[in-house]
Amino acid sequence: MPYAPTLAWKGLEGPEEAHLVATATQRMAKYSEFLRIPSVSALPEHAADCRAAAEWLAVELRRIGAERVEVSETGGHPIVVAEKIVDPSLPTVVVYGHYDVQPGDPLDLWKTSPFEPIVRDGRMLGRGSADDKGQIVIHLSALEALVGTRGTLPVNVKYLFEGEEESSSINLEAWMAANPERCSGDAVIISDSGFFDGNRPALTVGLRGITYIQVDVRASDVDLHSGSYGGSVVNPANALAAMIASLHDANGRITVPGFYDDVVELTPADRAAFAALPFDEANYLAGIGASATAGESGFSTVERRGGRPTLDVNGIWGGFTGDGSKTIIPAHAHAKISCRLVTAQDPEKISRQLEAALRAAAPAGLHVEVQNLGNGDAFLTPLGDPYLTAAAGALEATFGVPPLYIREGGSIPIAALFQKRLGLPVVLLGFTPPDDNAHAPNESMDLGNFEGGIRAVIRALDAIATIG
Amino acid sequence: MPYAPTLAWKGLEGPEEAHLVATATQRMAKYSEFLRIPSVSALPEHAADCRAAAEWLAVELRRIGAERVEVSETGGHPIVVAEKIVDPSLPTVVVYGHYDVQPGDPLDLWKTSPFEPIVRDGRMLGRGSADDKGQIVIHLSALEALVGTRGTLPVNVKYLFEGEEESSSINLEAWMAANPERCSGDAVIISDSGFFDGNRPALTVGLRGITYIQVDVRASDVDLHSGSYGGSVVNPANALAAMIASLHDANGRITVPGFYDDVVELTPADRAAFAALPFDEANYLAGIGASATAGESGFSTVERRGGRPTLDVNGIWGGFTGDGSKTIIPAHAHAKISCRLVTAQDPEKISRQLEAALRAAAPAGLHVEVQNLGNGDAFLTPLGDPYLTAAAGALEATFGVPPLYIREGGSIPIAALFQKRLGLPVVLLGFTPPDDNAHAPNESMDLGNFEGGIRAVIRALDAIATIG
Repeated sequence: MPYAPTLAWKGLEGPEEAHLVATATQRMAKYSEFLRIPSVSALPEHAADCRAAAEWLAVELRRIGAERVEVSETGGHPIVVAEKIVDPSLPTVVVYGHYDVQPGDPLDLWKTSPFEPIVRDGRMLGRGSADDKGQIVIHLSALEALVGTRGTLPVNVKYLFEGEEESSSINLEAWMAANPERCSGDAVIISDSGFFDGNRPALTVGLRGITYIQVDVRASDVDLHSGSYGGSVVNPANALAAMIASLHDANGRITVPGFYDDVVELTPADRAAFAALPFDEANYLAGIGASATAGESGFSTVERRGGRPTLDVNGIWGGFTGDGSKTIIPAHAHAKISCRLVTAQDPEKISRQLEAALRAAAPAGLHVEVQNLGNGDAFLTPLGDPYLTAAAGALEATFGVPPLYIREGGSIPIAALFQKRLGLPVVLLGFTPPDDNAHAPNESMDLGNFEGGIRAVIRALDAIATIG
Repeated sequence: MPYAPTLAWKGLEGPEEAHLVATATQRMAKYSEFLRIPSVSALPEHAADCRAAAEWLAVELRRIGAERVEVSETGGHPIVVAEKIVDPSLPTVVVYGHYDVQPGDPLDLWKTSPFEPIVRDGRMLGRGSADDKGQIVIHLSALEALVGTRGTLPVNVKYLFEGEEESSSINLEAWMAANPERCSGDAVIISDSGFFDGNRPALTVGLRGITYIQVDVRASDVDLHSGSYGGSVVNPANALAAMIASLHDANGRITVPGFYDDVVELTPADRAAFAALPFDEANYLAGIGASATAGESGFSTVERRGGRPTLDVNGIWGGFTGDGSKTIIPAHAHAKISCRLVTAQDPEKISRQLEAALRAAAPAGLHVEVQNLGNGDAFLTPLGDPYLTAAAGALEATFGVPPLYIREGGSIPIAALFQKRLGLPVVLLGFTPPDDNAHAPNESMDLGNFEGGIRAVIRALDAIATIG
């Protein structure tokens, strides 16, 4: 199964390089084997496939020298754990990945079959090739090369590969609480993210948190005739619009009292990292059919998206929404509103502040109910963190350019979970740019990134060995 | 068919009173005959009944001495016209009523059968007893008594009874344009409205106009992930809320530029008339389950409802409105907005001003479309109008108290149509309070109001004879 990497990456200086070159064909075969297992966690008919993928991983981990390999039950799909503890005085890194994948459909949009992996044009095509089986194979290959050449690792490593990441990791937190020793260490490397764009290496250092509420307002028992009642009673739709409008000022800043109190402001280094991103605004807008960017004054678009909190209406409804005209004053109106949050905003506190602001903006005669529909913590690895610096150095040594530092607008709940639950620094060391089509038809992985990724992981573990 | 009027009213001083007393039983029989015809204009299966009601009216008008009686085709249900021109130098009054009625259903909520009229407890029960056949019979009875005693009328009268009022009078305007001579005169009396509450006489002097628009806003081609795009592009739902909120100030005044330019402000006499209305705010709120009135500062609730323009959202929608949370920025959002208008606001002009205000309030990057869904003119008969004064004097002489002057929040399109099309003063001289249940089950007419109404019409015609 030959392949031609599309990106230049720099090989290792030591004997691991020769080992990796020698095992390249076998590696591709293992990678393909893994991808052939349709371990779709969301579909009950694939439960056995998920278990098969876990068992495949356990066999492979044992083959390449991992210890205490276990397929650990969770109540859902199992978690595969393993470790290689070489010296308790060395740093211990917890490596996270997931063996479950998104469903293959819509099948008609795939150029190949999602669970029949194939190498084409320097890429591995198939569901899970990028998200996240390919990245697990990167770690396994690094382990195999190190053990196969040095007989040991430069640091202690604990592997934790779950099978429910595409199903909201519903059993992970409870499993971690029940198995603290299997996930304790000095830092966490999550390889489930990627490059900012194209093939330039990147480290995701920030993810936003969220709080999500629904507000229901009511002024009368029934819809009212707008002639008989217009101008004499509160209109809940007008009132809700005014309440929502009151949550921003003219500069796009959120006016909820206390909202920014806990925000860790962007440092000059943070802003330099944002400015370094090769962000093409025209392309970004064209991709969604939009004509202008917008938002909080004083920040660039990438800063607003990745480094600043937001408040968005996700849905709004009330009154007559059919064709034509109906002259009513709605009895009630509703909105779903969510805030993307940044470190160190507390989602629950923000939710309460938002509710208070909405109530304060409501006119007399309007009955207001607010319910919280979900919270999630923000995640941030500060620039300058030694594990982050070690990873950055490994990426630069491998790919020839320093990595971009990305703060994503969305959330990867496990990142915040690891940071909050374990109290450890978390490094998001991933190798999949957006054009890998994770979650979409024709998912693939650039094999240059894949091979470079193995070298970068080895270099990162070597660099971590020099910390503290 | 005996009956006992429930309200004291003052009989006429002349021989007409004895004539009316002598013909009371016959009058009830005719009234019942008319009500038995199920002339439901909205239901095609009742087309023949509508024609039968028109023919019944024509026969009756001829019997009691009207001239040039004609069942005039409209393309829909016919219009019945007649006249009694006694002296071209005297004022000519156009009397309007309608012989069509609302459907009888829901039949299970009627205590009697809607088209089997019956007198009970001093009221005539049956569909059309109040709206509007009873009021037509009042005019016919006045004509019969005057011709039967004096052999003539004190003024010229043209009768115009249409058959499509409950179907939006769809053919009336075209018919009026084609038959100008049959509806020309010095003033119009519309008897299709009524008392404010209970049995106290009232004159409706104002009705609000309306303009109704839909605004559609869009910022992208598809719903966007609120993590990846939150804070970086316009959110159409937030923007629409802000645009709507911008249309009112903190005092409940509408901020649309030019909105109040053409408003005829309330005079001290207008405000005195509003203050005289027996309005029970607690009862009004309790009836709709509301806890407070609201609206434009500086005006009472009845003033705001009847004498001031408004701007209400009738419906709003956009984004995710299902159960639970979905983290999207909607691609588009929508609202239906209508304004109730007062004299002399031009609905089309207000519609354009509203559109301009919405566009001015829209942020860059938001695509805004506005469509007009309907306009209707306001109606106002100024206090002090001589025809209004004549009617008021007739009501006071008959019922013993001066009438209330009502400005309704809703619309009676024909009133504005007569005022605009004919350029004549219009007097809404009606005898049906809300508890007559027009449009509802168990419609009825208080026979005290009915008999008093005949006397009031005779007195009004006598008073009009002295004008100018």
